[in-house]
Amino acid sequence: MSDTQQGRALELKDSERNIEDRPKIALVIGAGDATGGEIAKRFAGGGYAVCMTRRNAEKLQPLIDEIKAQGSEAFGFASDARKEDQVIELIEKIESEIGPIEVMVFNIGANVPCSILEETARKYFKIWEMACFSAFLTGREVAKRMVTRERGTIIFTGATAGLRGAAYFGAFAGAKHALRALAQSMARELGPRNIHVAHVVVDGAIDTEFIQTTFPALYEKKEQDGILNPAHIAENYWHIAHQPRDAWTHELDLRPWMEKW
Amino acid sequence: MSDTQQGRALELKDSERNIEDRPKIALVIGAGDATGGEIAKRFAGGGYAVCMTRRNAEKLQPLIDEIKAQGSEAFGFASDARKEDQVIELIEKIESEIGPIEVMVFNIGANVPCSILEETARKYFKIWEMACFSAFLTGREVAKRMVTRERGTIIFTGATAGLRGAAYFGAFAGAKHALRALAQSMARELGPRNIHVAHVVVDGAIDTEFIQTTFPALYEKKEQDGILNPAHIAENYWHIAHQPRDAWTHELDLRPWMEKW
Amino acid sequence: MSDTQQGRALELKDSERNIEDRPKIALVIGAGDATGGEIAKRFAGGGYAVCMTRRNAEKLQPLIDEIKAQGSEAFGFASDARKEDQVIELIEKIESEIGPIEVMVFNIGANVPCSILEETARKYFKIWEMACFSAFLTGREVAKRMVTRERGTIIFTGATAGLRGAAYFGAFAGAKHALRALAQSMARELGPRNIHVAHVVVDGAIDTEFIQTTFPALYEKKEQDGILNPAHIAENYWHIAHQPRDAWTHELDLRPWMEKW
Amino acid sequence: MSDTQQGRALELKDSERNIEDRPKIALVIGAGDATGGEIAKRFAGGGYAVCMTRRNAEKLQPLIDEIKAQGSEAFGFASDARKEDQVIELIEKIESEIGPIEVMVFNIGANVPCSILEETARKYFKIWEMACFSAFLTGREVAKRMVTRERGTIIFTGATAGLRGAAYFGAFAGAKHALRALAQSMARELGPRNIHVAHVVVDGAIDTEFIQTTFPALYEKKEQDGILNPAHIAENYWHIAHQPRDAWTHELDLRPWMEKW
Repeated sequence: MSDTQQGRALELKDSERNIEDRPKIALVIGAGDATGGEIAKRFAGGGYAVCMTRRNAEKLQPLIDEIKAQGSEAFGFASDARKEDQVIELIEKIESEIGPIEVMVFNIGANVPCSILEETARKYFKIWEMACFSAFLTGREVAKRMVTRERGTIIFTGATAGLRGAAYFGAFAGAKHALRALAQSMARELGPRNIHVAHVVVDGAIDTEFIQTTFPALYEKKEQDGILNPAHIAENYWHIAHQPRDAWTHELDLRPWMEKW
Repeated sequence: MSDTQQGRALELKDSERNIEDRPKIALVIGAGDATGGEIAKRFAGGGYAVCMTRRNAEKLQPLIDEIKAQGSEAFGFASDARKEDQVIELIEKIESEIGPIEVMVFNIGANVPCSILEETARKYFKIWEMACFSAFLTGREVAKRMVTRERGTIIFTGATAGLRGAAYFGAFAGAKHALRALAQSMARELGPRNIHVAHVVVDGAIDTEFIQTTFPALYEKKEQDGILNPAHIAENYWHIAHQPRDAWTHELDLRPWMEKW
Repeated sequence: MSDTQQGRALELKDSERNIEDRPKIALVIGAGDATGGEIAKRFAGGGYAVCMTRRNAEKLQPLIDEIKAQGSEAFGFASDARKEDQVIELIEKIESEIGPIEVMVFNIGANVPCSILEETARKYFKIWEMACFSAFLTGREVAKRMVTRERGTIIFTGATAGLRGAAYFGAFAGAKHALRALAQSMARELGPRNIHVAHVVVDGAIDTEFIQTTFPALYEKKEQDGILNPAHIAENYWHIAHQPRDAWTHELDLRPWMEKW
Repeated sequence: MSDTQQGRALELKDSERNIEDRPKIALVIGAGDATGGEIAKRFAGGGYAVCMTRRNAEKLQPLIDEIKAQGSEAFGFASDARKEDQVIELIEKIESEIGPIEVMVFNIGANVPCSILEETARKYFKIWEMACFSAFLTGREVAKRMVTRERGTIIFTGATAGLRGAAYFGAFAGAKHALRALAQSMARELGPRNIHVAHVVVDGAIDTEFIQTTFPALYEKKEQDGILNPAHIAENYWHIAHQPRDAWTHELDLRPWMEKW
């Protein structure tokens, strides 16, 4: 954890909150992209204090500033979700110094398509490590706290590649299938302990800087609502996190109207 | 269509509405149970005029009265969704006399478990006719109108039996699988025409009179939120029907937190 | 049942077989196409007496002659698998006059793609009736006999449309989904009674006269083994029907090497 | 690679085979259990020279002796399929010194059920590394050779956990889902290059020493054919590997008749 984080944590201690006053936390693992950012803003707007992670915490500052300017609490953490010790430290810090994690959103994972014949062991591993192993580490640590309170919501951001394999998608499909299996296994174990575990299948390009610069032709579909608006994705996470427990959704898909599938 | 309906229709004509004033319609096919009723109320509360069908329209009167008492418009129709001529007449009447159907919810289907060895041809057919053929007829007729306007939402109520077969569920699973195939096929054809087609997998007992009287032991789970509250199901239909078109859900499941799956 | 059939049945009675001598039967429902024919030949070659149905029994004669010329027993029946009384009569006749049905293969079903907006109720029904309702009727009747002997195999010919819906495939996908649900439900109920129920997903064009005349461009892929050889399909049915019961397959797919999926 | 292996390799060189005489190879990755052993024997009996790996090659000796006694060629290799350099060396050695790998069977993977709350990062990783990462490494290396010859078969041993997650199965389901995604992705990329990639879902206990000693109650079902006979599993691998290419199976399941699913 960076020095900046240490500073922020100390500041928190200084405020000497009472347990009763502790805000409920929405934690976004991987708030580095537009989707994670919008999810954070949505939960902040709904009354949560939001904690956000990305590998470089400084880049979170504009997002933190934006959320604070709207009167909500926001905390940024440099934390590599692939590292067990960092994950343990992160969750411990949030729970002890800020408040109980009510909602965790896992939002990491990126595809770099490649022929299976040329895929490197290093990349195959890294794609799994980012999209799945991180989800396991953060999911487990957060779930450990939630079961003690017998409440909480954990949402994993999935992809179509989690439903079926495709040529040149061997690594990514593997990671996303494994993530979906994790979500299902956790839901089946933890649902009866009142922890709501869900998996959102995002099927289509999202309106991000990455898409804009890398796939300009794809980005042109934005004018016709042909790519996903991160704020609209966030609205569905909010919806899931607030379903009464007699009617929980484990999985839903999100897809632009004009997307082929 | 019953005389009562004719009367109601005439009354409408008398009001000499302008096209501009025509309310947007939410049509609930199969409003005879608690789920259909709550869906109707949710959309009425949200500003839709609701049209509701069941085989015996008189039984809809209390629901119509309740909705009207809250200041919304409600219309009941005796219509057998398994009969093509009745379906055609129903949709024509609503569209010409009340308003454009913006949302259709298909909510028919019942299971009567039976060994495949003892299943009768009549019952096998009837279960399919109710849960699937009716969905095709109503879905097709409504979609024909929606494509001319290039907008609309069609939601089918599915079940776990739509995802996998089970001993003693041959007839019901067949009907619900076929319904899911219909929903997927319609979504893939009509999505790019701006018609949002969705399928909701309800997995668990619903808080209805039927469950209360037939499965009292199951009904006891209500105290622990172990059976689905129809109003909460309805909230999800509302959510789906109002997703911006860059982020549409085709399928989501709903299940009590303690349900095994 | 046609007069021809009556004649054949009488002939059988004359032979005054002993029960002990009764041949084991492989029954192919829908032997009118190349696939059904090859399945019949494969089982005949493997020592079964084969019974075959199609709506016009006379057209089966060349196939019967071919099988008999190779020294096997073959019987043709005009039987409409969509008609319960005909199905009951067919199974009764075979079981009482020829021998116990050891294997049944259901091989009916055809797609006529159509926009859901233009699909007629008649065609939607007929596609289901042929591909699914017939399967239920024949499967049930045969299963009733098999459970009394605590042995037997039932194989349903499925299609990719049984796994997912597609634009213009609403009717066919519905029927094939329902068929798959039937197969799963029967397998789960009857497996523990020693009846092996399987579902074969044929994904690709088959080398038939229909494909040759209707889709000549597709048929050209035959030179590269790009369309399925019915004899090779048949070999897989044989394989399934002879798996030891500790290792039964419920579902397998068959697809040309170059097929996109 | 162990000294024993080096010795065996030298011996091979001494034989100065001609390319024309080189045997076609069936390679079994993970021949340490009954299933791998029976697969090796089945392919040896069918005319393949079999190469087998396990971490401790000496334990393969009885299997090698048994196969040789029946007149076939058999080679054992100590090779850790999780180590890229060992996998590269293994495939290079077999291809250069013994013969072209015609069939590869991947047969590694074990479950150790655990609550997700108590699962360790080390075990979560190891289960994936064994059941999935090894499959990627061996599959990729073998596929690289096969594409140069435009022929070959790769079969992965899967499990029900590859189809859905379950409580206490988070790690195993993740690994098996990822394996299935790998198999699908490879099949879709390599099928059109004439490489047959398949995935076999083994659903049930297998007749192994492990089951006999660890789950004696389960093992008692053997008398009723309630657990899978490894030789019968092997027969299905043989069947898949010899399907003509116009009718390839990508996935099939194997399950005892009495197994609940």
